[in-house]
Amino acid sequence: FASKLPDVGTSIFTVMSQLAAECGAINLAQGFPDYDPPQVLTQALARHAQTSGHHQYAPMPGLPRLREQISQKTAQLYGILPPSPDTDITITSGATEALYAVLAAVVRPGDEVLVLEPAYDLYGPAIRLQGGVPVYVSLLLPDFRPDWERVAAALTPRTRLMLVNTPHNPSGAVLTDADWQQLAALLADTPTLLLSDEVYEHMTFDGQAHRSALQYPALAERSFVLSSFGKTYHATGWKVGYCIAPALLTAELRRVHQFLTFSVSTPTQHALADVLADAAHYEALPDFYQQKRDLFVELMAPTRFELLQTQGAYFQLARYDAIAPGEDDVSFARRLTREAGVAVVPVSAFYHDGTDHGLVRFCFAKQPETLTAAAKRLHAW
Amino acid sequence: FASKLPDVGTSIFTVMSQLAAECGAINLAQGFPDYDPPQVLTQALARHAQTSGHHQYAPMPGLPRLREQISQKTAQLYGILPPSPDTDITITSGATEALYAVLAAVVRPGDEVLVLEPAYDLYGPAIRLQGGVPVYVSLLLPDFRPDWERVAAALTPRTRLMLVNTPHNPSGAVLTDADWQQLAALLADTPTLLLSDEVYEHMTFDGQAHRSALQYPALAERSFVLSSFGKTYHATGWKVGYCIAPALLTAELRRVHQFLTFSVSTPTQHALADVLADAAHYEALPDFYQQKRDLFVELMAPTRFELLQTQGAYFQLARYDAIAPGEDDVSFARRLTREAGVAVVPVSAFYHDGTDHGLVRFCFAKQPETLTAAAKRLHAW
Ligand SMILES: CSCCC(=O)C(=O)O
Ligand SMILES: CSCCC(=O)C(=O)O
Repeated sequence: FASKLPDVGTSIFTVMSQLAAECGAINLAQGFPDYDPPQVLTQALARHAQTSGHHQYAPMPGLPRLREQISQKTAQLYGILPPSPDTDITITSGATEALYAVLAAVVRPGDEVLVLEPAYDLYGPAIRLQGGVPVYVSLLLPDFRPDWERVAAALTPRTRLMLVNTPHNPSGAVLTDADWQQLAALLADTPTLLLSDEVYEHMTFDGQAHRSALQYPALAERSFVLSSFGKTYHATGWKVGYCIAPALLTAELRRVHQFLTFSVSTPTQHALADVLADAAHYEALPDFYQQKRDLFVELMAPTRFELLQTQGAYFQLARYDAIAPGEDDVSFARRLTREAGVAVVPVSAFYHDGTDHGLVRFCFAKQPETLTAAAKRLHAW
Repeated sequence: FASKLPDVGTSIFTVMSQLAAECGAINLAQGFPDYDPPQVLTQALARHAQTSGHHQYAPMPGLPRLREQISQKTAQLYGILPPSPDTDITITSGATEALYAVLAAVVRPGDEVLVLEPAYDLYGPAIRLQGGVPVYVSLLLPDFRPDWERVAAALTPRTRLMLVNTPHNPSGAVLTDADWQQLAALLADTPTLLLSDEVYEHMTFDGQAHRSALQYPALAERSFVLSSFGKTYHATGWKVGYCIAPALLTAELRRVHQFLTFSVSTPTQHALADVLADAAHYEALPDFYQQKRDLFVELMAPTRFELLQTQGAYFQLARYDAIAPGEDDVSFARRLTREAGVAVVPVSAFYHDGTDHGLVRFCFAKQPETLTAAAKRLHAW
């Protein structure tokens, strides 16, 4: 049997989480919190789990009351007109499903899809499964900023879709207002759609604000914007995300979504709808995560890792050149997991061709004790 | 913007459920129970919703303890060696995701996929999204049995995959041992894989037993077999299903699954793992559903609908020729919903070319009062 994705193995997140488990390592590799969702949310799920009538198919686009809440939240958060719950908002099985569904809905065989690298490892294979051709443009180190001239040079009349991700996984880089303006200018008068992966929207640091594609009308009219309740509510295992897009694009997304998963857990959607109106939770997130970042940076100071600047998301990149000069990042990540007892992700996993900058990624969405214990192990090693 | 699926509208299930809601009709259209999951299960979900540590990503193939339970259940139920939880079982976001992932994993542009019609409306579009070519073979009325000679004639060296569904939606027909033997003989020495959609496995009537592709080694070695907790536990809105396939095929399925949804709700998987060992629930299902079918048949006797024989699943087909001779089934289904206040699905929606046999489908997974009220409305009309 000849595989359609012969070069795709188990994702790096699974590999490193498994290795961490085998070695009893502290898992700072796969991106997930080691704390629970807010109690008001877990209690809401428990309540809806025991509510008669909340157990059958939700409507295909999502529960109306959840879409209504998302519409209001989005309008307030970004100072824009509320997207229509009926025609612009779709609830998906995590942002992952939304991403795949957008690709399946708009990419035809031979279409080019522009990807800024490093990038989440699903982009390339998911594009290729549609017969699309990923075209990669590297972000510039050490800040992982887009070079808009290179992007302009990579855009062709065949570029069906461009993917951006802000705050950025793995680097934490955040697109600025100037970036968005540049992008809007580049895409004007092209047939290129935009997929804006904004799942870390509530995690930005040092007073830097997340700006959404939704805030730029010239982009919003051609964009699929993805968010994730898993990230915002410390519930990556609940697998609920959503996509906001203009009615015409949403219609295409839903055409695929209805065949891909049809609908998303009804009791879980009810629970999320119960808590979304309370802005206090997500307004506190930047501080919550900045404290974790600051603590981690402080704890790591005595080690010989050289930390890059992180503006957002819950990841910290680090150079290990002073520790293991010349060692490739996959080998170093595995050795760190086995020998130091701290699992990380090698950043080459985020490049389609394994480009190796001698960087590993730590996830700092962890309790202070976890971060302290990890830093101690790293220091001792 | 040119759609990739221009001829695909909103699925008939959504359309009819919406129409039912607008008209205040009793919804016997979309297939879902109007009763809740067993209390032991909803309580388990409530418990896990409040269990610390049960809220982050489950492992990509599913929770090990749930896969272990499925392995044991499958071995007992079908009298076969237990499929390996590690390499043969994958938890998906409903059987729908499994279906889509199998197609995405094995169908290449130009591959033919053999579909027995009438069929669930997602098969065709999902095949076409992979660049595949659906090849349709009609089941024979009035029993909806496969004509194996026609199937043999439709198989070509390009047939990558064949889909079967037993018990069958919408007809309730059940494949017999002889059918499976025929199918095994037909597929021997071909490169054709099998996708066996067995989500109604626990609903068969009149002493008829469901037989699984897993019980035929010559088929099992080339099959993806789909099951659905939503169907078995009256929880269609929980969106958890699974796929059993040999290790090599499972590896291909997981390559896609990891990009499509990555993983499935962790608290929900824990809840299901808690109850699966208790065989009493699913052993009682054939009787539970046969009583509903028998009641519905009895209640419908005074009407002028002519009911076909139903051997399984939770659907009842009916001819309306005596009521509205010559009327097309879509028009009749809409009129029934609006005028009689009972929503049904026109069976032409299950044919790619809208073949109209003058049949509508009732879902009888309803409380006795619901079925009684519906039959009363139909009789009065
Ligand atoms: C779905 S596992 C990957 C989680 C994640 O977003 C990451 O670690 O980058
Ligand atoms: C996912 S909605 C369709 C439910 C169903 O299986 C049916 O009604 O046939």
